[in-house]
Amino acid sequence: MAVWISRRPQAEVDAALAQSSAAAGSLAGIRLAVKDNVDVAGLPTTAGCPEFAYQPSADAPAVAALRAAGAVVLGKTNLDQFATGLVGSRSPYGAVSDSRRPDYISGGSSSGSAVAVALGEADIAIGTDTAGSGRVPAGLQGIVGIKPTLGVISTDGVVPACESYDCVTIFAADLELANRAMAAMAGGAAARPWPADTALAAPPRPVVAIPDELPGLDATWQKAFGDAVGRLSEAGAQIVTVEIAPFLAAATLLYEGALVSERYAAVGEFIDAHQDAALDPVVAGIVTGARGIPAHRLVRDLREVKDLRRTAMALLAGADAMMVPTAPTHPRLDEVAADPVGVNSKMGTYTNFCNLFDMCGVSVPAGKAGDAQFGVTILGRAFDDAVALDIAALVMNVQAPQHAWPLTVAANTELIVFGAHLRGGPLVHQLTDLGARWAGELNTAARYRMSVLDTTPVKPAIGRVPDDAAGASLYGHRWVLSPAALGIFLAALPAPMQLGKVEFADGTWRTAFGCDGTAAASGKDISSYGSWPAAMEAGALG
Amino acid sequence: MAVWISRRPQAEVDAALAQSSAAAGSLAGIRLAVKDNVDVAGLPTTAGCPEFAYQPSADAPAVAALRAAGAVVLGKTNLDQFATGLVGSRSPYGAVSDSRRPDYISGGSSSGSAVAVALGEADIAIGTDTAGSGRVPAGLQGIVGIKPTLGVISTDGVVPACESYDCVTIFAADLELANRAMAAMAGGAAARPWPADTALAAPPRPVVAIPDELPGLDATWQKAFGDAVGRLSEAGAQIVTVEIAPFLAAATLLYEGALVSERYAAVGEFIDAHQDAALDPVVAGIVTGARGIPAHRLVRDLREVKDLRRTAMALLAGADAMMVPTAPTHPRLDEVAADPVGVNSKMGTYTNFCNLFDMCGVSVPAGKAGDAQFGVTILGRAFDDAVALDIAALVMNVQAPQHAWPLTVAANTELIVFGAHLRGGPLVHQLTDLGARWAGELNTAARYRMSVLDTTPVKPAIGRVPDDAAGASLYGHRWVLSPAALGIFLAALPAPMQLGKVEFADGTWRTAFGCDGTAAASGKDISSYGSWPAAMEAGALG
Repeated sequence: MAVWISRRPQAEVDAALAQSSAAAGSLAGIRLAVKDNVDVAGLPTTAGCPEFAYQPSADAPAVAALRAAGAVVLGKTNLDQFATGLVGSRSPYGAVSDSRRPDYISGGSSSGSAVAVALGEADIAIGTDTAGSGRVPAGLQGIVGIKPTLGVISTDGVVPACESYDCVTIFAADLELANRAMAAMAGGAAARPWPADTALAAPPRPVVAIPDELPGLDATWQKAFGDAVGRLSEAGAQIVTVEIAPFLAAATLLYEGALVSERYAAVGEFIDAHQDAALDPVVAGIVTGARGIPAHRLVRDLREVKDLRRTAMALLAGADAMMVPTAPTHPRLDEVAADPVGVNSKMGTYTNFCNLFDMCGVSVPAGKAGDAQFGVTILGRAFDDAVALDIAALVMNVQAPQHAWPLTVAANTELIVFGAHLRGGPLVHQLTDLGARWAGELNTAARYRMSVLDTTPVKPAIGRVPDDAAGASLYGHRWVLSPAALGIFLAALPAPMQLGKVEFADGTWRTAFGCDGTAAASGKDISSYGSWPAAMEAGALG
Repeated sequence: MAVWISRRPQAEVDAALAQSSAAAGSLAGIRLAVKDNVDVAGLPTTAGCPEFAYQPSADAPAVAALRAAGAVVLGKTNLDQFATGLVGSRSPYGAVSDSRRPDYISGGSSSGSAVAVALGEADIAIGTDTAGSGRVPAGLQGIVGIKPTLGVISTDGVVPACESYDCVTIFAADLELANRAMAAMAGGAAARPWPADTALAAPPRPVVAIPDELPGLDATWQKAFGDAVGRLSEAGAQIVTVEIAPFLAAATLLYEGALVSERYAAVGEFIDAHQDAALDPVVAGIVTGARGIPAHRLVRDLREVKDLRRTAMALLAGADAMMVPTAPTHPRLDEVAADPVGVNSKMGTYTNFCNLFDMCGVSVPAGKAGDAQFGVTILGRAFDDAVALDIAALVMNVQAPQHAWPLTVAANTELIVFGAHLRGGPLVHQLTDLGARWAGELNTAARYRMSVLDTTPVKPAIGRVPDDAAGASLYGHRWVLSPAALGIFLAALPAPMQLGKVEFADGTWRTAFGCDGTAAASGKDISSYGSWPAAMEAGALG
């Protein structure tokens, strides 16, 4: 199957796994495959071309971060040469075939990484993605692929393909593990900073846009997509359709326009100087074809990308995210061989525009289309990685990870609530509309009093009791939200509610609801119930 | 002097001025000149080339916004052809000369706009800026030029020069009027959105970086810069030096590298097709010289810009802004004629890198260098426009505008404070460190009580009195700050302080300091003093 290009000695791997499993990292004992365009110290980086190989002196930061969390590198995986392709067969190391049906393609360019995970040879695998290389093979192999917002994971130590649009991705069998790996990789000094208003969760009933047309899908694949839409709708999402044409228009720019000159800038001079190397003829043709493109044509294509992006983002204005098929079909190896450029181009129909539009994506398995695995991708706006992750969990009908990975790396704030903003409460939308993420239950120190305010809806007033008085430990919920979301929430908060520090049972002081003292004193004391829901159940709020 | 390319009939201008002056706009009665690469309905747009001229069907959004605020267009001003130059002499409409010394250049490319303001023929003037065209002529003409962060003012209706780096600028004789014009122009649907953590003010003692070397300045000009540094320091700024080399390195990329292909993309085909037009030979040479630059070279130059920007921003990490000479010298027209490219290039020494690095700038007069006007530019990071404006006011020794223009267009929040966060108070740095801007005094409704908390430093506890009790009207200060700043401030606020809505004398409810009720009740009542400073002066806080 040509999955691996190089492997670490098994004894070395076994020793590392034993050591890692005994430690406490978030990825302890996890086996990691790395696409061979990403540096791992001690193994050559070939980018799928033996003559291009070099010995990196250090791990790429993404690899180093996974290793620091306990992951153990097994080896380097095969890829479409120079990460140019979506098929997995453009490699002198051999075509990578599908994990279940050997006559079919694996998808690429992160072919070996996706198949290693699909076969269970690795638990997680690093891929890269420019035109869809971190999503198409995930879709075809029935696994999860997270393609983050451009730049939030450093691409240092990655052989550039089309540098402005390259990013590091992760493959795993399930969303929880993929999320954990992302949390370990993201952040760091070289990373693009998260905005101060980053959404940390999708709203409970997200609005998800789907394409108005599904070019390239036959009836079976269309039905598979329709079934996924149905499941997403049943799970609570509101489905809207969006004109797909402006999205698809960008795809032609990525491979048929002047942007290919980024690929020439990356490896063109190497190819020109190594005509006797084991070059994939299709890849070499694409790259060297860009040698003579004039710069002013690139300027105009970049302008067109910008204009198309503006149009596309306007179409998505009312939606939290977008769901598309990850790939439109699953071709056989002989079909790709017969029309290498045409089939490859079709494979990118629903992925090519994503990085050009600075979107993020999570590709997840969504059942079968005939004998083929079927995948869908949730695409979000830049930095809406947590939103896309949550909606992907809805499609898969699994619990969204409690600590979505952007949350763990961006600077965030928290708010503890006691009444109408408890999860399920009547005012909770004020938090979820701002991208707040529910983060668990907790209790105050036994130093507080709760009374009922005569507001609509009724609300609890929390106040600290004097030092010499008996207080109650009160039940609350913790929300995590961006600093901007907390500021906006406070700016909209009506009197007599106030926000400030409250002491919790574990001795921490956290930002929580308080109340103006006069209003708090005027309400009926319900501290003895210990929680707003208990007081409500007892009929004590009326 | 060749200041104007086209003018509106005087009778039309007079009627419009009479009508505007009778209305209530923020720019009522203000006379506006518009650089002739920006569309004004009813006047041709030439971009400094008669054969290029077209009749725009509508005002550019920037012009429309100034007109909506009451400004009256006088006409269109001369410029270096296609906005390519920093000298003001590259125009078939005639070289624009200095407003005071006819043998000297005006500076460009916004030559006519700057001179119209310097001569008092217009109150404000629109310019554009790619390499320094909105700053160099402001410096040489002894006026103010604001070059905002890229994109925050729409460039629709502007003839592109080097589109990725073009922006609309304003000239005025003083900072207050320039600020008012910016406030009118900024914002709108096509504009780049302000981040949720936009700083709205410079801190009271800003850290300002100055170059470690001043290439291109003779002893007289160096002394003028040194004097400006001295005044800034006396005004309270902390001066640090920064290595200027990485900044200057970017300059060569703008004109000597592949980025010139943006200029070919803009007007190259026009020039190729109109060799018989009144083309400035220097401009035509620059533009058509970019025809054959390969795209992969542009890719590499853009990569180098990105790397240089990273280096430069790291050097500025500890500084609030940077101060540079606006121009290094003021050449005569014959000196430019003798070496049109060399002198032009030198003029951009301290301006060329700015837009490539996504910085904003405010150029202000700073005395004389011999007989020449001397100007300095305060350069800020992207979106630090208010910071740069405040520091520019320090240099000029004038009051900073109370409503700095970014504040009026970004989504912001407010916080009313009563004690240690009053301007001049011991904790005010907690607000100014977050970019909060002081915005005036106000008093609560007479429904509140103020007591003294036993904290370090002592703080006031504000609480609403019961409806049947007598309350006091309490004195406070209003700060405006970004939503993220408010969230961060709240997240750091210690117990028993709380934030929530307080009623003010004008009937508004605003986000203000409150307090946990028990703590508030424990303190000594000082409501009768009406304000924290009054209570302090009376010795009532001890």
